[in-house]
Amino acid sequence: MAAIDTPVQLKAVAAPGQPDVTPELEQLYQGFERELLVPLWTEIGDLMPAHPRSRAVPHLWKWDNLVRLADEAGHLVPVGRGGERRAIALANPSLGGRPFATPTLWAAIQYLMPGEDAPEHRHTQHAFRFVVEGSGVWTVVGGDAVPMNRGDFLPQAGWNWHAHHNASDRPMAWIDGLDIPLQYVTEAQFFEFGRDEISDAERITPRYSRSERIWGHPGLRPVGVAHTTPGSPLLAYKWEHTNRALADQLELEKQGYAGTVEPGHAAVRYSNPHDGSDVLPTIRAEFHRVARGAETTPVCETGSSVYQVFDGSGTVTVGEVSWSVTRGDLFVVPSWQAFSVRSEAGSSDSDSGALDLFRFCDAPVFEALQLNRTQIDK
Amino acid sequence: MAAIDTPVQLKAVAAPGQPDVTPELEQLYQGFERELLVPLWTEIGDLMPAHPRSRAVPHLWKWDNLVRLADEAGHLVPVGRGGERRAIALANPSLGGRPFATPTLWAAIQYLMPGEDAPEHRHTQHAFRFVVEGSGVWTVVGGDAVPMNRGDFLPQAGWNWHAHHNASDRPMAWIDGLDIPLQYVTEAQFFEFGRDEISDAERITPRYSRSERIWGHPGLRPVGVAHTTPGSPLLAYKWEHTNRALADQLELEKQGYAGTVEPGHAAVRYSNPHDGSDVLPTIRAEFHRVARGAETTPVCETGSSVYQVFDGSGTVTVGEVSWSVTRGDLFVVPSWQAFSVRSEAGSSDSDSGALDLFRFCDAPVFEALQLNRTQIDK
Amino acid sequence: MAAIDTPVQLKAVAAPGQPDVTPELEQLYQGFERELLVPLWTEIGDLMPAHPRSRAVPHLWKWDNLVRLADEAGHLVPVGRGGERRAIALANPSLGGRPFATPTLWAAIQYLMPGEDAPEHRHTQHAFRFVVEGSGVWTVVGGDAVPMNRGDFLPQAGWNWHAHHNASDRPMAWIDGLDIPLQYVTEAQFFEFGRDEISDAERITPRYSRSERIWGHPGLRPVGVAHTTPGSPLLAYKWEHTNRALADQLELEKQGYAGTVEPGHAAVRYSNPHDGSDVLPTIRAEFHRVARGAETTPVCETGSSVYQVFDGSGTVTVGEVSWSVTRGDLFVVPSWQAFSVRSEAGSSDSDSGALDLFRFCDAPVFEALQLNRTQIDK
Amino acid sequence: MAAIDTPVQLKAVAAPGQPDVTPELEQLYQGFERELLVPLWTEIGDLMPAHPRSRAVPHLWKWDNLVRLADEAGHLVPVGRGGERRAIALANPSLGGRPFATPTLWAAIQYLMPGEDAPEHRHTQHAFRFVVEGSGVWTVVGGDAVPMNRGDFLPQAGWNWHAHHNASDRPMAWIDGLDIPLQYVTEAQFFEFGRDEISDAERITPRYSRSERIWGHPGLRPVGVAHTTPGSPLLAYKWEHTNRALADQLELEKQGYAGTVEPGHAAVRYSNPHDGSDVLPTIRAEFHRVARGAETTPVCETGSSVYQVFDGSGTVTVGEVSWSVTRGDLFVVPSWQAFSVRSEAGSSDSDSGALDLFRFCDAPVFEALQLNRTQIDK
Repeated sequence: MAAIDTPVQLKAVAAPGQPDVTPELEQLYQGFERELLVPLWTEIGDLMPAHPRSRAVPHLWKWDNLVRLADEAGHLVPVGRGGERRAIALANPSLGGRPFATPTLWAAIQYLMPGEDAPEHRHTQHAFRFVVEGSGVWTVVGGDAVPMNRGDFLPQAGWNWHAHHNASDRPMAWIDGLDIPLQYVTEAQFFEFGRDEISDAERITPRYSRSERIWGHPGLRPVGVAHTTPGSPLLAYKWEHTNRALADQLELEKQGYAGTVEPGHAAVRYSNPHDGSDVLPTIRAEFHRVARGAETTPVCETGSSVYQVFDGSGTVTVGEVSWSVTRGDLFVVPSWQAFSVRSEAGSSDSDSGALDLFRFCDAPVFEALQLNRTQIDK
Repeated sequence: MAAIDTPVQLKAVAAPGQPDVTPELEQLYQGFERELLVPLWTEIGDLMPAHPRSRAVPHLWKWDNLVRLADEAGHLVPVGRGGERRAIALANPSLGGRPFATPTLWAAIQYLMPGEDAPEHRHTQHAFRFVVEGSGVWTVVGGDAVPMNRGDFLPQAGWNWHAHHNASDRPMAWIDGLDIPLQYVTEAQFFEFGRDEISDAERITPRYSRSERIWGHPGLRPVGVAHTTPGSPLLAYKWEHTNRALADQLELEKQGYAGTVEPGHAAVRYSNPHDGSDVLPTIRAEFHRVARGAETTPVCETGSSVYQVFDGSGTVTVGEVSWSVTRGDLFVVPSWQAFSVRSEAGSSDSDSGALDLFRFCDAPVFEALQLNRTQIDK
Repeated sequence: MAAIDTPVQLKAVAAPGQPDVTPELEQLYQGFERELLVPLWTEIGDLMPAHPRSRAVPHLWKWDNLVRLADEAGHLVPVGRGGERRAIALANPSLGGRPFATPTLWAAIQYLMPGEDAPEHRHTQHAFRFVVEGSGVWTVVGGDAVPMNRGDFLPQAGWNWHAHHNASDRPMAWIDGLDIPLQYVTEAQFFEFGRDEISDAERITPRYSRSERIWGHPGLRPVGVAHTTPGSPLLAYKWEHTNRALADQLELEKQGYAGTVEPGHAAVRYSNPHDGSDVLPTIRAEFHRVARGAETTPVCETGSSVYQVFDGSGTVTVGEVSWSVTRGDLFVVPSWQAFSVRSEAGSSDSDSGALDLFRFCDAPVFEALQLNRTQIDK
Repeated sequence: MAAIDTPVQLKAVAAPGQPDVTPELEQLYQGFERELLVPLWTEIGDLMPAHPRSRAVPHLWKWDNLVRLADEAGHLVPVGRGGERRAIALANPSLGGRPFATPTLWAAIQYLMPGEDAPEHRHTQHAFRFVVEGSGVWTVVGGDAVPMNRGDFLPQAGWNWHAHHNASDRPMAWIDGLDIPLQYVTEAQFFEFGRDEISDAERITPRYSRSERIWGHPGLRPVGVAHTTPGSPLLAYKWEHTNRALADQLELEKQGYAGTVEPGHAAVRYSNPHDGSDVLPTIRAEFHRVARGAETTPVCETGSSVYQVFDGSGTVTVGEVSWSVTRGDLFVVPSWQAFSVRSEAGSSDSDSGALDLFRFCDAPVFEALQLNRTQIDK
């Protein structure tokens, strides 16, 4: 049980909307302190702002730095029971040094050395992996070995057993996204250790996971397999499909048809084939492609996002901050801060010249609680 | 924008599951600090516990103290634009002195002097009023004057304009419940001032609100009135119905039929007549009656609750803490702490000798996000 | 298995949109007949009209005639196993002499002599009772005795065991509504005999059924009782609530507030307190009150309705037909025929002078299948 | 309006469960006839059977006969406004010579000559096309040209404009499935003529429809395109995906994993990528593959199905009837008649030796109305 280490401390101050500072008021406030009470009238500005004012700040993490430190950790920090994973999380600079990229989202680089395993466990936190580069690691979810390659997205809903094994002779890095901060503040977490070793039978390296062979055919669902747990039963969304879908949208736009979000801006949402919902109950994941030279309209949304640059380069603006970004860079967009991006042709090294962005956010939470709002600056 | 005042601080320590403390590790951790990174392996015990370990603690607030301090505030603190309400909130002793009864719930006593008005505003925070004693105040929601009397429950979903007026010659106290902490941590809040004065036309004191006349008939819904906003369109759940429903359940139990939760324990949930869901998207409200001498089975649930004793007396046990409670007392049950209650015949002054408890909790959040779990100790 | 008694018969005819009548065409049509085939081009006008053209016709049944014949049946036709019920159904004059009030709905007068029982059975057909006059009969649903009095509405979803007993010394008549025709055409019916005799313990005459004591309190649901079967768990919607809800709507209208469907036209829908849906999966039930001298706007809807006049008198117009109606009269409104009603002050014998109409219809079927359309003539 | 040509005709007969035949009873029945009434007790056996007893019978139509007659019609019956389509429907032998394959489903062969167009129209009836052989026809839905090739399934929800054009130099046949009988009995139909000619811009022959380019990527949905109408936005389910999904299920089964319905029996359901539901609000469509030598377990279901043999050969049993079937053959399974199939290795000409069956049925209607039941004979 947490210690009672921060009793209420109130100070009567002269300010508009506040009662006159008198000895009686000070005495009243002392009474509040003794009884563990806090008045609304001193707190309302912070608690009930005219619009969300995030405690988080926009921030950019450069991929090169992350990979360098992860590789150092690969040589110093073993992966095993207790520590569980060699995952290193983004800590938003204004969230108290906690490993919270935003108030609700965890984002980390995970790193596995050649031949290494990460032991099996399960937790209520909803998770996914996204691969910006490399290959060779399999994630084994409930005994189903799922390969991970550049551009692949692997959702993994809470309470599924999972482990990793690096079957290659090279280290591999990828990002993990979870709702750890959300479950931390709502206090919903359960965790269990699984087997310390994965079996040789699971140490296989199939091209397709079983989940893809059952659930990965477009518009087709199995008649003989039920799906009754939260989140998507499809454990891998391969890059070839994402890339094709985005290319199709931009091509339709060129031919004069609907398809993109706005001119030069294609986007797909990873969805649960069972019911069309978001892949995870608390996390939305999307992939955005901004064509060479295009620029998106600034949008404010309730809730926060983390982006990773998958390819290309450009300029990102969040609130009053702008950064140049390139492959692998990660950045956060706090709640209700205007976000826009411009693809910059010159510096792009991708085939298309487009800026490709992977995004995840907490929008399903806001939609489930009917708290979602969007404002588009036109 | 929040200041960057808490940079990451990491300390390599020798502990099971932690890497060996070496100069290289300390250098690595300094690299993490510089890049605003935090590893999972030092935090996992706190972030991913085997089961929820709440930062909140069980705590009891005595009603007499609350009323006394609220009355003092009634003489010292005016109600008006800016401070908005004379509301004094419970501050859980281990939540940093913030006015948070639990990590997600706000509970406050509100107090209005004879003839006073509280000015109109609206906010995305979902709210309700519950009246343990007194009468004379009307809450005007969207121009609909809703009376408040002992035992009445008044939900008020987010973004509805509302004001209060005390039409009587006596002060009145009641409790407000809101999801202020939840919206604070998720950063979903919007707020607007309304009119500074409510009109004389609204300063009426009808026995039934318009919402009750449209939506308050059992099993009947209006054909001519649509309901398209979140939360219940029924703005008052009068005590006479709650009391009757609880009495009926206990009587059915006596006759050998289903109806109660467990022997001697009747309970109703306030529900949205539009769709049968919880009255508010983020808050569940219930009323429990524990018959004279009965005792409830200890239950652990994800999420937190606030209770107010409406009548009778008894002993409440939360985790390892027990209190004697009586009319008006408020207490909190943190996430996953076992809760049970025993009605004590001797000291009860109610007609029935039952212990009557009003409860509100954040269960709709957990259910919407598929994070709800319950464990009953049998 | 049905006999093959109606082979295909085709005749080539000269008509617009039809192929030229030639010997070859006649030979083709003979080929179709032999192979049990029918071309679209000869049938499209009937099968795919520009808008629904009902096979049913508007028709009025006078209550006096129904009661007189039911009473004769009461003396000639025993109630017992095999025949099951002394129910006499409306047969729409253009539906082939079948006991179908409309293509989807069954409406019958049921009649029980003093002291008589109707034996227990259950069926997938969804049913309800509505009482236009009299009292004394109890319907026992799953062992729960539900009283029936003037103005009461008793839904009873499919597959619930049920029986009736007349505890009084007078015959009693009421109407039964079911989805028998719908389940006949879709072929979904199951039926089982129950006990031949209801027990003395069930031959009780409580003022409230157990279902009302659990589910009949406005906006309150039991915490300890789950509801997992289709349809409403509330087995009686008493007249006092219906009457009050309608009066409240008209009074709100007088005070200048929303509430009614249109001026002088109040209406409530019986709803499932569990989820706010229609009381039965295939049948909607409503009660309409048209104030003295008021007239409703003609409305066309997909799907069919049956109305019974509960009180007052007036003029009803369906398509091109009009009737004067009075207490107890039943009439049908076929799909997409304009319906309106005028309350006639002079001849009314009710307190209010209003025309009170009970209505049931198949709207939930159309809504579930996304086939519902409405057109209001303004 | 339909003529009143079938008045009620009742005959008192001596039978178990029927009242004694007396002059008074005969007089009562004459009274019923005059007042357009029919008693339950003479009809209950037909209307409320112990389980569904379908008015339809199992029946088999041989594909060769259908194609031969369709081709004759191709030379005799022009396609144009009024007749609309050269579609020739299966008429179940016991459904009164109407073009109803089952009480709820329409199944027809449609035939288009080289270069022919079928004019644009729209209707509330939900429809699909399935192609057992041939190619060359495009269906233009809302201006989107959708190619049709062997094995492709094309759903087309109600009220979408659509036309066909045969771009090849050969006739093409395919089957149309619609809910015409269901909408006929419920009386929900609307119909509108569109343009008489499709534009040259639509007379294109792309490999993929626009709908596939937006909605046909597995687990990916467009962010920029909303879907707000009933039914699937994906207008073509290409054979390559269906075939692959079935092969994957059988391969998983061989490897010891879940995937198939039962040993040797793979099946996929065509689903709406927007929400995972059935492709059409009233029609379910599936594809079943029964491996060489395998046999399915007899199953009874409420509701009716139509099957077409896509490949292979085998023996089908429906109720008490069995047929040998081969490519293109169509047959119906009435409500609650046991259905099973055996794949016969010897006569198969497919690669795999499997029996491939396309199926459509009215299950969504039964599920939406909570009337679905299944019984598996084990």
